[in-house]
Amino acid sequence: MKKILIQLDTDAHPSTFDRVVAVDSDVDELFSYGGVTPDNVTGLVHGAMFTRGGDGLKNTAIFIGGSNVADGEALLKKVQSVFFGPVRVSILMDSNGSNTTAAAAVLAAGKHVDLSQTTALLLGGTGPVGQRAAQILTSLGATVRIGTRSAAKAEATCEAVRSKVEGANVSAHETGTPEGLAASAEGVEVIIATGAAGIQLLSAEQRSRIGSLKVAIDLNAVPPVGIEGVEVFDKAVEQGGVFCYGAIGVGGTKMKIHKAAVQKLFTANDLLLDTAAVFEIGQNL
Amino acid sequence: MKKILIQLDTDAHPSTFDRVVAVDSDVDELFSYGGVTPDNVTGLVHGAMFTRGGDGLKNTAIFIGGSNVADGEALLKKVQSVFFGPVRVSILMDSNGSNTTAAAAVLAAGKHVDLSQTTALLLGGTGPVGQRAAQILTSLGATVRIGTRSAAKAEATCEAVRSKVEGANVSAHETGTPEGLAASAEGVEVIIATGAAGIQLLSAEQRSRIGSLKVAIDLNAVPPVGIEGVEVFDKAVEQGGVFCYGAIGVGGTKMKIHKAAVQKLFTANDLLLDTAAVFEIGQNL
Amino acid sequence: MKKILIQLDTDAHPSTFDRVVAVDSDVDELFSYGGVTPDNVTGLVHGAMFTRGGDGLKNTAIFIGGSNVADGEALLKKVQSVFFGPVRVSILMDSNGSNTTAAAAVLAAGKHVDLSQTTALLLGGTGPVGQRAAQILTSLGATVRIGTRSAAKAEATCEAVRSKVEGANVSAHETGTPEGLAASAEGVEVIIATGAAGIQLLSAEQRSRIGSLKVAIDLNAVPPVGIEGVEVFDKAVEQGGVFCYGAIGVGGTKMKIHKAAVQKLFTANDLLLDTAAVFEIGQNL
Repeated sequence: MKKILIQLDTDAHPSTFDRVVAVDSDVDELFSYGGVTPDNVTGLVHGAMFTRGGDGLKNTAIFIGGSNVADGEALLKKVQSVFFGPVRVSILMDSNGSNTTAAAAVLAAGKHVDLSQTTALLLGGTGPVGQRAAQILTSLGATVRIGTRSAAKAEATCEAVRSKVEGANVSAHETGTPEGLAASAEGVEVIIATGAAGIQLLSAEQRSRIGSLKVAIDLNAVPPVGIEGVEVFDKAVEQGGVFCYGAIGVGGTKMKIHKAAVQKLFTANDLLLDTAAVFEIGQNL
Repeated sequence: MKKILIQLDTDAHPSTFDRVVAVDSDVDELFSYGGVTPDNVTGLVHGAMFTRGGDGLKNTAIFIGGSNVADGEALLKKVQSVFFGPVRVSILMDSNGSNTTAAAAVLAAGKHVDLSQTTALLLGGTGPVGQRAAQILTSLGATVRIGTRSAAKAEATCEAVRSKVEGANVSAHETGTPEGLAASAEGVEVIIATGAAGIQLLSAEQRSRIGSLKVAIDLNAVPPVGIEGVEVFDKAVEQGGVFCYGAIGVGGTKMKIHKAAVQKLFTANDLLLDTAAVFEIGQNL
Repeated sequence: MKKILIQLDTDAHPSTFDRVVAVDSDVDELFSYGGVTPDNVTGLVHGAMFTRGGDGLKNTAIFIGGSNVADGEALLKKVQSVFFGPVRVSILMDSNGSNTTAAAAVLAAGKHVDLSQTTALLLGGTGPVGQRAAQILTSLGATVRIGTRSAAKAEATCEAVRSKVEGANVSAHETGTPEGLAASAEGVEVIIATGAAGIQLLSAEQRSRIGSLKVAIDLNAVPPVGIEGVEVFDKAVEQGGVFCYGAIGVGGTKMKIHKAAVQKLFTANDLLLDTAAVFEIGQNL
C-alpha cells in the first residue's frame, strides 16, 4: 500500500519546501492543499479516515504547515477533534518549520553544554520557535530566560511553556535596553536568537562581556542576523571560546529531523509529532 | 505510458477520499482540481484530449466528483460537449459517491431477493442516491416506489428514472405520515433509506408490521440512522427475518466498485461510467 | 534523487496539457500551482532553492506556463530575481506554448528553404508566437517582416526582436489592406500566420499571386484558419509548389521539443530555457 501524505497548508499555496522534503522522505503520494482552515478541513480528514481500514490506516498521514504557526496550531486542534476512537491517522505539525528548527537548535547547543544543567537566554523568545525551544530546553532540565522587549508578552510565553512542561524553570526578561540585556545574560551558557528578520539583538561588544557564554545560535537566515558576528553558514565555528551557529549551519540537522519525522509518521496510525516528539526524533538520529 | 486520472471536483478542495481511492486503484498520476465548473473546465479537458494521440488516449481519464451531485451532473454534461469524434477520454462520474453507493446498496439487496421480481420502497428517495438506486432497480425489472414527504418532488424523480429506463415500473408515494408510510410499505421486500442525516424515516415498530420485508438498508452513516434498529456497521445482520445493512456495512462493496471503475477507465478512451455502467462493474466483481 | 518539476501557472487552474507533457517527459514528481503571480511566487522559489544542496539542485526545476504570455514573462523575471549566486534551479518558459510553437514552426520552414537567406512574413506577427518566431528567424540570418494592421504595434515588436538579436533584420509592415498585404508579401518565401482565431489573413487568391512563396504555415488550430486553403492537419502538404502546414501538422514537432526541453532542465541547475534555447533544443532533435 502506497504511503500517502496529506499536506494541509494554511497559506494559499502549499509550501514547495515541505513538498520537496516529503518527496525526499520517500512519501509515495503527496496530496497538497492550500488555504486550509478549521472550517474547511473536516472533509479532508474524513477522506483520510474512511478509505483504508485497520492496519492500512498507518499508510495515510497528515502534515500541517504554512507560514503562520498560530493558524497551524488551530488547524491541528481541529484535525484532532475530527478523529474518533482508533479511526485516526498520524500527524506531523511543523508550521513555518517551527518544531524542526527549535529541535535542531537545541541539539546544536547540546553538543557543547550539559542541557540538564545549563541556563539559556532566548532573544526574541516569544515567537513560535522561541517558545518551542524553551519547551524542549526546560523539559531537559535547563533554566530558560525568555528575553523580549515586552515583559507581558514574555510572561505569556512562560505560561505557555509551563502548560507543556510541568515545573518548567522559565522566566520572563526584559532585554530591550542595554542594561536589561546585560542583566538577563548574566551567567548564561547558551543564547539563541529567534527574533524577526533584520533586527540586531546582541552586538559583538555585548556578547564579549558575557563571560559564561559557550554557545551562540542565530536562527535568522537573512542578514543582518540577530547576533553580530555570527554568519548564516556558521556551524560550530569558535569565536573567542563561543561556538557559533547560523541558520543554515543548523539547517542540515533541521532537514534530517524533518525527513525522519515524515518517515516516522508511517510507522503507526495514531502518532502526534509535535514539539516533544519531533525533538525526540532528533535525539535518536 | 503512465495512467493519468484528472480529478475534476466541484468543491473548493478536491476530495481526499477520491484521491486515496485513485491511488489504491493503481492510477500512476493524479491531477486534482478543485472549484471546477462548466465555465472553467474546457481548457482542462483540451489538455486531456490533445496530448496523447490515438491509442495513447486511453491512458488519460477523467473523474468527476464533489459533494454536490447536481453540480457534478452539469460538469459531466459540459465535459462531454468538449469532446469531438474519437478525440475523447473516458469519464467516471461519482459525485458524493452517488453511483457507487447506489450500486452497492442494490447489490446487497440482490443477495436476498430476486431483483427482477421484487418491490422496493426508497425512503427519502428523491435524492441523488435514491434516484440512482431506482434507476438500477427498475432496469433489472423491479417495481420501485419513491417515498417522500413531497409528492411533487417524488413524481419528478419518477420522470427522471423513466427517462433513463424505458418502461420503468416506478411510482411516487407520500410517506410523511404514518398512514402514508404504512400504505407505501405494503408488500415491499426491500426498503432502502437514503434520506438526510439525523432524520428517522422508519421506526422499529413500523418496520415490524411490514410482513413482506426481507431487506432493510440504511445508507446514512451518521447516527441516528433513518431506519430504527439498523446499525451503521450492520452487514446482512438478520433481525426477525429481515437482513439489515448500515452505511459502513455497504461500504466495503462500494469501495470495491469504486476501485474497479477507476481501473476500467483505462481500458478504452470512450467510456462513460455513470449509473448503469457502474452497477454493471459491481455485478462483475 | 527524484526529478521534481514545479509548474508555476498564471491561470487559476494549472494547465492539464503541460502536466501531461511533464509526466510523459519522465518527471518523477510534479508540483502544480495555479494563480501564481510575481507577488506570491517568492516563497515557492525559496522552497526550490533551499531544500536540495549542491549537485542535488539540478533535480528540481521550474516550468512557467499559463495562457497569458505577458503574465508569464513578468513571472519569469521575478523568479530569476529571487535566485542568488549558485543557489538557483533551471527554468523552462513556455506560456501558452509560445516558445515551443514558434520553434516548431521555424523548424518546419527550415525543411524547405535556407533560413539564413530567406525572407519571411509573419501575419498577425505582433503576438507572442510571432515575436518569438521573428527572434529565431532573424538570429539565423533571415529577413523578417512583421505584418499587422497597426504599424505602431508592429514597430514595437521589431524593437523587442532587436533587443534580443543584435542587428536583426526585421521591419514593420501594414498588412490590413489588400494593397499593403500584396506589397508586404512581395518576394517572401515563407509566410507564418499567428493571428487570433477566426480571422482570415490571406485568401487563396492573394496567396496564388505570391510567386516567390515556398512555405505557408498557419498556427491557428481552430477553423477558419488564417491562410485560406491550409488545413489544421496539413504537414508539408504541397499546393501549387507551396508546402503547407497547419497547427496540428506542426504539433508533433512542438510536442517533441516540449518534452526534450523538460528533460534538459534536469541536466544542470542554472539553465534558462527561453526562446533561443528552446529552438536550439529543437534543432538537436
